[in-house]
Order: sequence, then C-alpha cells, then structure tokens
Amino acid sequence: MSLHTETIVALSTAAGVGAIAVIRLTGKESVNIVNTVFKGKDLTTVASHTVHFGTIRNDKGAIIDEVVVAVFLSPHSFTSENVIEISCHGSPYIVKEILKLLVAKGARPAKAGEFTQRAFMNGRFDLAQAEAVADLIAAETEMAHAAALNQMRGGFSVQIKALREELIAFASLIELELDFGEEDVEFANRDHLRTLVEKLLSVLKALISSFDLGNVIKKGVPTVIAGKPNAGKSTLLNALLNEDRAMVSSIAGTTRDVIEDEINIEGISFRFIDTAGLRQTEDELEAMGIERTRQKMKEASLILYLFDIKDVESTEYKVQSEELLALGIPVIFVANKIDTIDAQTLTTVQESNSEIIPISAAQKTGIDTLKATLIKKINAGEISSESNIVTNIRHYDALLQTKTSLDNVINGLDTFISGDFLAMDIRQALYYLGEITGEITTEDLLDNIFSKFCIGK
Amino acid sequence: MSLHTETIVALSTAAGVGAIAVIRLTGKESVNIVNTVFKGKDLTTVASHTVHFGTIRNDKGAIIDEVVVAVFLSPHSFTSENVIEISCHGSPYIVKEILKLLVAKGARPAKAGEFTQRAFMNGRFDLAQAEAVADLIAAETEMAHAAALNQMRGGFSVQIKALREELIAFASLIELELDFGEEDVEFANRDHLRTLVEKLLSVLKALISSFDLGNVIKKGVPTVIAGKPNAGKSTLLNALLNEDRAMVSSIAGTTRDVIEDEINIEGISFRFIDTAGLRQTEDELEAMGIERTRQKMKEASLILYLFDIKDVESTEYKVQSEELLALGIPVIFVANKIDTIDAQTLTTVQESNSEIIPISAAQKTGIDTLKATLIKKINAGEISSESNIVTNIRHYDALLQTKTSLDNVINGLDTFISGDFLAMDIRQALYYLGEITGEITTEDLLDNIFSKFCIGK
Repeated sequence: MSLHTETIVALSTAAGVGAIAVIRLTGKESVNIVNTVFKGKDLTTVASHTVHFGTIRNDKGAIIDEVVVAVFLSPHSFTSENVIEISCHGSPYIVKEILKLLVAKGARPAKAGEFTQRAFMNGRFDLAQAEAVADLIAAETEMAHAAALNQMRGGFSVQIKALREELIAFASLIELELDFGEEDVEFANRDHLRTLVEKLLSVLKALISSFDLGNVIKKGVPTVIAGKPNAGKSTLLNALLNEDRAMVSSIAGTTRDVIEDEINIEGISFRFIDTAGLRQTEDELEAMGIERTRQKMKEASLILYLFDIKDVESTEYKVQSEELLALGIPVIFVANKIDTIDAQTLTTVQESNSEIIPISAAQKTGIDTLKATLIKKINAGEISSESNIVTNIRHYDALLQTKTSLDNVINGLDTFISGDFLAMDIRQALYYLGEITGEITTEDLLDNIFSKFCIGK
Repeated sequence: MSLHTETIVALSTAAGVGAIAVIRLTGKESVNIVNTVFKGKDLTTVASHTVHFGTIRNDKGAIIDEVVVAVFLSPHSFTSENVIEISCHGSPYIVKEILKLLVAKGARPAKAGEFTQRAFMNGRFDLAQAEAVADLIAAETEMAHAAALNQMRGGFSVQIKALREELIAFASLIELELDFGEEDVEFANRDHLRTLVEKLLSVLKALISSFDLGNVIKKGVPTVIAGKPNAGKSTLLNALLNEDRAMVSSIAGTTRDVIEDEINIEGISFRFIDTAGLRQTEDELEAMGIERTRQKMKEASLILYLFDIKDVESTEYKVQSEELLALGIPVIFVANKIDTIDAQTLTTVQESNSEIIPISAAQKTGIDTLKATLIKKINAGEISSESNIVTNIRHYDALLQTKTSLDNVINGLDTFISGDFLAMDIRQALYYLGEITGEITTEDLLDNIFSKFCIGK
C-alpha cells in the first residue's frame, strides 16, 4: 500500500498562538527528512524515545526556530512507524514555515485523521478504537470521556472479536458441508451453533440497548423545563449550577424565548431548554408559540415540570400534568417553594402524589434528590467507567444489522433450513461485525470515518 | 526567592481542540509531582531528555488519559529547572482534569510568562531576550520573525552588555576619586572616558534610529492608497497580492469607505488603506469624508498615489500632488494604465516626471519596480536577518534615556565638570542600560513585561 511508504506531516496541537506548538511526522523517512533541516545532533544516530534541542534552518542556513525534537523509532510509536515530534514556538508564522520546509524536503501534508489511520492500518488498534480517539478528544464530560477512553483501550472490541472468531469457525464448517453437496453431512453441530448465536445475540442486545445511554453520554440529555414564568425556573437552574460549578455554556437560542443551559450532573450533560408554558389559548400568535414548545418537548428526552407547590390542587396543574404525560416522554414533577408552606401541607401533598419531588430552589433544599432523579431517569445509575457503552451511531447501525442476520440464523435453525442459507446469514453477520472493528473495510468507509478527525491526529 | 522553589504548571499549547496538547511543569518538584499520577515508569529514575509512554490516573485509579511524558532535568532545560512536558490528547476536558490533578498534587498554576520569567531569573537569557520570545510567537512576517529571533538569540544585548561593562569600570574609578575628596586626583582618564562614551553613543544612535524600521517590521506599514475611484486601486492590490500569494487578511474597516488590505512584500507587512479621493468641495457631508481621509493620511507612513497616466497633465492631478506632498509623508506616484497609451507618450511623461512609476495593474507590468520602491521608502533595503533592530518601545525609551545621560557626560567633559556630577550621569546611563537587559529590574517592571505573555510560556 503506497500510503505506508509516504511520510506525512501536520501541526498536531490546536491552531492559534500558544507558547509551543507540536509538528508531527510519521513514515519511513521521518527521521531523515527532519535531519536535513535540524542542526544540533545527527538524528539518524539517536536512540528511540529521546529528545534533542537544536535549530531548524532553511536552505539558506537562516534559522527558523529553536526547537526540541522527540524521536520515536518504529515500531515503538503511536503509528508503529518512525515518528518525529518537533516542539517549536507556538507562532502560526513559524509553524507555517517549518511545514513548508518539511514538505519541500519530501513530507506530504497529512489528511484529517491520517495519523490515526496509519496506526489502524499498522494494527496498533482496530477501527472502533481508532474512532474512540476522536470521541476522546471531543469529550466534554466525565462520562463521555470515560466511555471514549474505555473504547479506545479495547472496550467492546474485545468481546466482539472473540465471538466473531467463534462464528468464523462455524462458518467454515458449514461451508465445508456445502462442498460435499448432496451428501447430507453435518460438520457444524446445529446445537452448538444455536448456543453460540444466542450468546452473541445476548451480547449484541446489551450493546444495542446501551446506545440510548451512549448517545445521551455523548451528546447530552435534552431536557425541557416547563412551568409558569414565576415557578422559579431560573432559580432552579442556578441552584443546579451552583452546586456543581460546572456550567458548560449558556447559549442564547435561535428563538427569542428558548434559552439553553448546559449543566453537568455527575458527569452527564443536561441541556435544559426553557419554554413558554402550555395552556389553552384563543390567541393565534400565542398558539404558535405553544406549538413550538410542544415541538421542543417532543424532541426532548426528559421533561422537568416545575410548579409552585401551592398550585398542586389547581385545575391548571391537573390539565398540564396530563398533557405532559400524554407526550410519552419521562416527566419529573418538581414542586417548588416548599419554604413557603408548613410541614403538614407538604406531608399531605406527598401522601397523595408520591412522584412529586419537593424542593426549594431559593433555599437549595431537595436539589440532591432532584439530581439523583435526573440521573435515574436516563438509566445512567449503573454505568461505571468499565462499562462497554456504544456511543457511535455507525457501530449501532452495524450491531442492528448483525442482530437481524443472527435472528435469521436462529429462525433458520428453527425451521431446519439448509446449510447454504445458514451460511449466507452467518456471512452477513460476520460482515457487519467486521465493519465495526475494521476487519472488513472499504476505502469509502475509512475516508468517511477519518475525514471527521482533525488534521494532525 | 520563594518563586524558584515553587513548581508551576500550565497548558503550553494553544487553547482549543487539537490532536495533542502539551502541559508543562517547571520547578524542583516537577518530576516527583508527575510521578505520583503517572503509571508506566518510575520517572525519578529516568535520564534527562527521554520520553515515556504511560497513563495519568486520578486518586481513584481511573485513567484520565494515555500520555507521553518528556523529562528535562536541571540544568538542561528551558528554565534550567526540572521540566516535565506531558503530551496528552488535545481535549479541553482532559487538559482540565490533568491540570486539576497536578495542582492537587502540589503544582501551582503558572502566571502569564512565568516559564520565561523563570528562565530569565535563572540566567538562561537576559530580559531583552526574554521579551523577544513573546515577539517571536507574535511575529507574522519574515522580517518580524527574523528581528525577534535575532534578539532572542542575543541581538543587541551582546553589544549593550559589553559597553556597559566598560562604563561600569569607569564609573568605579570616578567613584574612587570622590573618596579622595579634596585631593584633586583623577583615576579616570577623561580622554578615555570621552572615547568610550562616544563609542557608546554611536551604537545607541544606530539602535535608536533602527526603531522606526523596527516598529514598521513589528506592526506593518500603514500605507494610504489614494486616487480616483477608477484609477485601478483594486486591480493594483490584486496584482500585488497575486504575485505574492500572501494576503494576510482583508478586514472591512470600521468606516464604510475605508478598507484595509494587508500585503506581505519581501517579509514586510504593508497595510493598504483605501480612501476617498481628495478634492475641494462645497458639500458639507463630502467635506467630512475628505477630512477623515486627510486624518488617515496623517497617520500613515506612506502614501501611494495612483492615477491614470492620461490624467498626468490635468489640473486636478497637479492640485492633488501638491496637497499630498504638503502632508510631509513620503508619497509614491504611480501612473497606471500604461497599456492604454503609446510608447512615445510614456517616454515624454517619464522625461518630465522621473519620480513617477509607470505600471499597468491589469497587465501586471511594473509591479516589481513598485514593490522595490515600497521597500526602499521605508529603508528596509539594508536589513539582513543578522541586523540588530530595536522593535520594543520599552527598549527604545530606555535607549533614549541612556543617550540623554551620555550626552550630559559629554557636555560635562566639555565644561570640565566635577567628578561627582559625571558619576551621577554615568550612573543614570548604567541604570537605563541595565533596565534593557535586566541587570536592573523592579518587581513592577517584571510583572508588567511578563503579564503580556501568554500563559504556558
């Protein structure tokens, strides 16, 4: 493959001005190319994993910068190839000049994700692990970080690979049967096959069902916060924020009346979407606003309905509650301002509405219970940093396809289908499993995956 | 000094998402602090200038990231202290977590410029060199880069230090005379002192006069491009750009009718400021626009007056030329559209106006001559990358103060002033020279200088 013989180069640190910037090369000629422009030490003679101070000079002998060069010799590097990292001053001008010089000396500018692609091509890790590198860099919360790191270090790839190996063994036995044509022999024990496929299916189902959570971990939980303007929404958001000191951002929405607050609760990002209240109206304009609110609610994963505890007996509360529940999305009922009522009233309310979470946003009472409920509602309670969670939609799709093929295998076994049909379904399943970890790839698939990386990775 | 004993930490690469990010520590405890959170190798036992792959783990043993750690042991590092550089994945979340962890383990977040300040404090370079590090990072053109790099590697510090040493020797001889009070002895030969001061003054004058150019190198040359709307201004700018393929930026000005184009010509940045033409008008609004143009012109370092060569005999041309010359700023007269006239007309124009540069912006004729003229007009012709050029206004001010003090010494020698007054002026000169290179510093001065650096440098 010609890719492997080319030496590529890119800025690997974030663009912009910094104290230092790191330019990275990988490929057979990395050391030789850098050596032609580096003065300080003959890099072709140095040991792997050593760093050397010197200058980068252009062809006229003019110094471009004082740098530190780190040498990683094949196979002990990120890509398994010869890798050089040049730490220069973090000036865009200097970075540009050094890149130009290295390209003139024979390095090719790297495409997005090409360093990671090299590592994948050279067997340093499989495709799902390579994809996790991009997720790791993009992770903004503890959970997203933990899920990506776990996957980068192996994750469900290990499970999938082991089961795929077993399935391959069966596939070849069945293919062998086909060679014997009419003779009606069975090399592949159908009961053993069924056991294996069922084991595979149970792993697949767990991974598939982890995707809901995985998606939430990766992208945050869109949570509509509904309630009347004076219900205490802002105070509640501040109470949630203050406890965590972890507001990610506060973005003014595209529409005037929808404000999103992103709050990190136990490593999960909740995007709180503030909305106008729901109510019956004759006003056409207001009806349009309410329609938009309803739309937002349908796109949400959670609804937090905040109301003044004194309103709990009102007709409005009852109408709204029913309307919210009818949306089919989990609703958390939060009764605010418990500091304004007496204990007996509170007890009465709780007795008749066990689902209601009583809080005082102003006094920051009940906030921990509310947080625990938020986490519980998205089933994030049981995850640990070692859990295998599918966060990548490509993997999810391939897992679904695999499951369909394996369901067909089970159906085939139930109906004593002939070996060639079984073999076809097994081959399908192997194909989709192989796509996840990268045993099966196409150039398009790889291009598609790695082009989403940043350049220099 | 307590500064030196503290170990400091900061992100040293540009903020934002990248493939990798580098976190740097300097101080006595760098190695020990990183060693408490690094798994892979015992860093306290490794050699200087080696790199090690491993993981950073928090107190619960959870992995934060897979990293590569580079170890630089005192005194062979940027700061002369123990320095550790941690290359982690370029995720803001990971960077934040690692920084938090290192601070929990005893490192202090570094202040802006504190790494360079340490290097200065530990004698790795003088103050003027330290300041050049910031200039180097900010440099956007070849010349700005060359001037900063030259200064970082010694530059005029070397000249100034040598002369300062000689002056100190004289100062102590004169102080000795003062000890002898009434005895009227002269240990310091006045003729030798005069020779030395004159040598110093000639160096100072050269450095002081280099500042005009230095400022231009650092900040670019504001160049007003004047001329009638159809004179071909845009075509000219494009012709200048096309030849260089080096447009830095095209910024829409704050006023509707002033557009700035930044063009890099032979490593110097020219900021072309497009303006409305100058002409007499009765219209009040138009007069205001013209007044603004005049203002822009006064702030410029150069005026490029572009006109259609066929207009060279017009009254308007004559009036405008005189008005421009009256501003007291160098004016370059550029006659455009020479492709529309015959050779004889051109020769006639050139004979009577030797200062005019004939071009065809459309045909890209004469552009090289124009560029050479632009460079010549700002006296940038003679600079080489080895020239000592003062680009820093602090140095410029200190050089001016030194010159005043030394002028006083010469005056004193002329008027046979007494030794104590001479000594006072020499001490003044030594003080200001020392401020440049940092032999004389105050905490305020250092704070002021290094606070302009980026954090992590």
